[in-house]
Amino acid sequence: MIDLRSDTVTEPDEAMREASRDAAVGDDVYGEDPTVNDLEGRAAKAVGKEAALFVPTGTMGNQIAAHVHTEPGQEALVERKSHVYKYELGGLAQHAGLQVRTVDGGARGIPTPQQIESAYVEEDLHRPGTGLCCLENTHNARGGVAIAPERLEAAANAARERDVPVHLDGARVFNAAVALDVSVTEITQHVDSVMFCLSKGLGAPIGSMLAGPAEFVERARRTRKLFGGGMRQVGVVAAPGLRALENVDDLETDHENARVLAEGLRDVDGFAVQEPETNIVLVDVSETGLDVDAVLECLRERDVLATPFGPTTIRFCTHRDVSRDDIERVIPRVEAAVSV
Amino acid sequence: MIDLRSDTVTEPDEAMREASRDAAVGDDVYGEDPTVNDLEGRAAKAVGKEAALFVPTGTMGNQIAAHVHTEPGQEALVERKSHVYKYELGGLAQHAGLQVRTVDGGARGIPTPQQIESAYVEEDLHRPGTGLCCLENTHNARGGVAIAPERLEAAANAARERDVPVHLDGARVFNAAVALDVSVTEITQHVDSVMFCLSKGLGAPIGSMLAGPAEFVERARRTRKLFGGGMRQVGVVAAPGLRALENVDDLETDHENARVLAEGLRDVDGFAVQEPETNIVLVDVSETGLDVDAVLECLRERDVLATPFGPTTIRFCTHRDVSRDDIERVIPRVEAAVSV
Amino acid sequence: MIDLRSDTVTEPDEAMREASRDAAVGDDVYGEDPTVNDLEGRAAKAVGKEAALFVPTGTMGNQIAAHVHTEPGQEALVERKSHVYKYELGGLAQHAGLQVRTVDGGARGIPTPQQIESAYVEEDLHRPGTGLCCLENTHNARGGVAIAPERLEAAANAARERDVPVHLDGARVFNAAVALDVSVTEITQHVDSVMFCLSKGLGAPIGSMLAGPAEFVERARRTRKLFGGGMRQVGVVAAPGLRALENVDDLETDHENARVLAEGLRDVDGFAVQEPETNIVLVDVSETGLDVDAVLECLRERDVLATPFGPTTIRFCTHRDVSRDDIERVIPRVEAAVSV
Amino acid sequence: MIDLRSDTVTEPDEAMREASRDAAVGDDVYGEDPTVNDLEGRAAKAVGKEAALFVPTGTMGNQIAAHVHTEPGQEALVERKSHVYKYELGGLAQHAGLQVRTVDGGARGIPTPQQIESAYVEEDLHRPGTGLCCLENTHNARGGVAIAPERLEAAANAARERDVPVHLDGARVFNAAVALDVSVTEITQHVDSVMFCLSKGLGAPIGSMLAGPAEFVERARRTRKLFGGGMRQVGVVAAPGLRALENVDDLETDHENARVLAEGLRDVDGFAVQEPETNIVLVDVSETGLDVDAVLECLRERDVLATPFGPTTIRFCTHRDVSRDDIERVIPRVEAAVSV
Repeated sequence: MIDLRSDTVTEPDEAMREASRDAAVGDDVYGEDPTVNDLEGRAAKAVGKEAALFVPTGTMGNQIAAHVHTEPGQEALVERKSHVYKYELGGLAQHAGLQVRTVDGGARGIPTPQQIESAYVEEDLHRPGTGLCCLENTHNARGGVAIAPERLEAAANAARERDVPVHLDGARVFNAAVALDVSVTEITQHVDSVMFCLSKGLGAPIGSMLAGPAEFVERARRTRKLFGGGMRQVGVVAAPGLRALENVDDLETDHENARVLAEGLRDVDGFAVQEPETNIVLVDVSETGLDVDAVLECLRERDVLATPFGPTTIRFCTHRDVSRDDIERVIPRVEAAVSV
Repeated sequence: MIDLRSDTVTEPDEAMREASRDAAVGDDVYGEDPTVNDLEGRAAKAVGKEAALFVPTGTMGNQIAAHVHTEPGQEALVERKSHVYKYELGGLAQHAGLQVRTVDGGARGIPTPQQIESAYVEEDLHRPGTGLCCLENTHNARGGVAIAPERLEAAANAARERDVPVHLDGARVFNAAVALDVSVTEITQHVDSVMFCLSKGLGAPIGSMLAGPAEFVERARRTRKLFGGGMRQVGVVAAPGLRALENVDDLETDHENARVLAEGLRDVDGFAVQEPETNIVLVDVSETGLDVDAVLECLRERDVLATPFGPTTIRFCTHRDVSRDDIERVIPRVEAAVSV
Repeated sequence: MIDLRSDTVTEPDEAMREASRDAAVGDDVYGEDPTVNDLEGRAAKAVGKEAALFVPTGTMGNQIAAHVHTEPGQEALVERKSHVYKYELGGLAQHAGLQVRTVDGGARGIPTPQQIESAYVEEDLHRPGTGLCCLENTHNARGGVAIAPERLEAAANAARERDVPVHLDGARVFNAAVALDVSVTEITQHVDSVMFCLSKGLGAPIGSMLAGPAEFVERARRTRKLFGGGMRQVGVVAAPGLRALENVDDLETDHENARVLAEGLRDVDGFAVQEPETNIVLVDVSETGLDVDAVLECLRERDVLATPFGPTTIRFCTHRDVSRDDIERVIPRVEAAVSV
Repeated sequence: MIDLRSDTVTEPDEAMREASRDAAVGDDVYGEDPTVNDLEGRAAKAVGKEAALFVPTGTMGNQIAAHVHTEPGQEALVERKSHVYKYELGGLAQHAGLQVRTVDGGARGIPTPQQIESAYVEEDLHRPGTGLCCLENTHNARGGVAIAPERLEAAANAARERDVPVHLDGARVFNAAVALDVSVTEITQHVDSVMFCLSKGLGAPIGSMLAGPAEFVERARRTRKLFGGGMRQVGVVAAPGLRALENVDDLETDHENARVLAEGLRDVDGFAVQEPETNIVLVDVSETGLDVDAVLECLRERDVLATPFGPTTIRFCTHRDVSRDDIERVIPRVEAAVSV
């Protein structure tokens, strides 16, 4: 089975498992787990922030950030296809009492400064004021596009000039940095807080990091407890997380594999393939005459897994548990599946 | 001073004041106020619903409806410029834990069935399901446009076919019925619940009605208490409300006045006037070379009041406290103000 | 029918109705209703606060106060039998995200400073901090007891010394002042905010006032809109409210009637009557051998209405629509009812 | 350093670390992690429920249970010193919109049926109805007392007869079963849902289980995602969790050590020692003339750690990382510390 559904399926490798077995641990609720402390320090440094916090999931990281940055009754500016809006069960409203205001970030999922400016709402007697702006990089639902620092900066500054804090859902921000060939801090320097996942392309089994100013992280730690995310001997998952941080350069391989896959899929009859920028390949299958579920079923019969991604689109996601050979095996199977 | 800011400024007339003075009253928390009971019965009948509830404001009526129709963590479909989204302080999130999903209803503020269909979200492990669809008629921010029953029906049915209840913000639904020359029930029959205001063009000093199925209204009564809207001798405001229900036909005069006003304003240099359908006249003043605040200030100096309505737009709203003579006096004053 | 269920059943008298008919009104959302502005000024002065806000109900007043004073995730200290805890549908949790911590204020419903001190929680990583202390005077469920300024001061200071703001549910605070023969400001000076009702013993048909520092009231005005309490020509109910403020001295009559009633009820077989301090008479009927509903039903057959108040208790509440003659007629009817 | 602060400090042993290293894993968001699936099956069976769910923390398990069992605006009955009320940041209000009603469960922290009955509130127009009853066994703040099945049954039945679901915070429910020498299902059979911790005395580094009817657990899975608790290769922590389930019998050693410790501490001047029933020893130090912080500081200087537990109380908690020898070393150190 070649599993291209998501980079979340990556399994911890031997080194990670050994690291976990040997990890020095302590009770993180008391702040005494040396491994997670080490990880939090390194993660903060990696993204150029004062402090960082280990969180069980990216969703929790994003929701904690929104909770800490805002007060109930404000608005959150979110991109129309962003994860925080589409796939987090409406948490912005439920956890933080925020009304979302969606901006259409277009093909790259990044609002222009003009859009931010025009979506910004000044608080008055009738209107909730804008209290948060969330950006996403790479942008998953737009096809893993890597947003350049300048464009992110422009959007972020439009918010920050209006005293609106900016949170980056950087679940795959290292993919962006690698694809753009910039340091990740060139991206993250423009936002107030950033969440990134250890458990996606970087290969850790569990965990994400939420980074920002020290005071923000201190409040986030308390909110993490509210969400039930304050775990104990976190070192056993922080140790693989530390190894994951060393996997950043490997992401280039995933990107290359995505390009090879896209190249191959372009020859499939009826496939309209979006040029990948990172590890995500979106394919519109409407011209095949088959619907998404039928295509996925045919693929599954040939031991290839991908993800439905809207009414006519399929997402293939490359990752460290899929090799170039696997990718090359996928292409004929897809051709066979669709030509049935 | 000729006050065209809003039809909310209408003052109770002599008949309403007398009706209030003479009203039989009781404690409405015990359900014993005969006048409000009478009003609730008549209001329900007027909009063709099983039952109705008196609420202090339209905002409370809309928010109670959302609270009763949904459960926390669902999505509410709202029009991008609707009152419930823009002007109710993010209550959908704060009161009901709802994530809003905005649909752009275009120049008439009414989503197409295709838009509803495409915005509909099926609940799953990651996504909040659509729990409510809110429509608005007349649509205030779109210029008081009167949405025809067929278009409303099409939108509402697209939601209801998916088991999504539809609430109508009918703050000015009687204006719509009069403008379209249909019975109001031809409009309201297509929705599950409707709120309409007694305190706008109909002239009552205080109050709105929330109508729907008997069980819905029963639950709304409890939610009204939660919101702090369960008042005592409500008859003193219900009595004017009963008179207000008799003022429906007079709305035609407001509409005529709006047309006269629009006609006159068209001659003002730099004014781009939207053709009114009901009692609202929107004017884009960008070609005057003046900004909205400057125009409003000049008008105020000439004893004319209107409302800023976005960066380049002014709203004039006719109502029963402004006569044809007033309207005719307004036009030269506006010309004078802008030509300065 | 002699209605002793509650002082909320009081109907507006002729003077109030005339005042309403003749009231100068305006749109209160624009702050232009002269009558409500007048009322807010006088109410603020009456309770010695910088500013006051008209609210449709006492419940809304209490809930707005809690919303403004706190942030979600704090605790509110409330008396175990207080209205805000028992009868407001759990609004403190729903509206403001507050966890309640109950203190047993004993027979008089007023916590001691030691109780406040011991219930106070310092915010830490695991514990919500105390963000509000609510007191009630007179205390309804304890039998309308009038809490002396010194006792209120002691409790309030215990909270305020810990930077916990104190809100007074003073629905019947004028009853307390009259009973204690003190100025109401001798009571209200000890709290940060106070709500009192115009619609109970003072006789207005609708409305309560929320008073406090100017900045608090400014924020309360916005929260009132969130709750759907921002009404239009509020003058029509504010005018009776102004008359109601002149009825304070009449409360003494209600208290006297309560004493007469209590005196008479003491002779009823099986009645255990709590000595009234204001306008509320609590009677434990367990020794009659009848249950509360049976007693109430027998009373109703004899045209006397009272309120069930727990498993063995009935509440009689005197008010301006019940005369001394009425009271004297009640006693033999009760005797007859119970002796059946 | 002998760390008696909490059984949460237990570190995974070699077997657990090996189990983690060798664990078969998959993406648990897709339900494909065989190890966590195995753990969920075994945990459900262990406590006699249809299904179980892995959650990162006990706090999240309790809060999810409350979220699933109730709807906003209900009341939750909680014991006055229970963890869910005192140490979960007011989550019942913030996450689930619940008003808490506290019952004083006395020295054993278990309400009587009469207390439940009298605290039960029937929903009406003014009152939130009781929607949940939370019990705790062993009861931490009462000194780790083990509540007998009959007493738990009596309390639970009083709630369930009124259609109020009962959730058991069984963070240490296996300690209770071992201490009472009953099967844990004799305890858990009386409740609708139960949370227990793998990460306390059972020694796992991370995780708790939430068990109940299949439909409850299905909804809990979705709510876990809302809370940000839906992790990926959960097998790496589920594998130690499976080992932890085998450690149940070892808890008897902790209890014995607690008894030895209590015995020894009784000889310390000024110590009032509560007889331990499980692994928790509470000591009132007020008669030493020292305050809690001073005692703890003296202990720390002698390499013994314990926890402050209220103004005059210290908690010692035995666990698998503290041996009998350690315990015996602790006693003279405490004596030395206090006699200074």
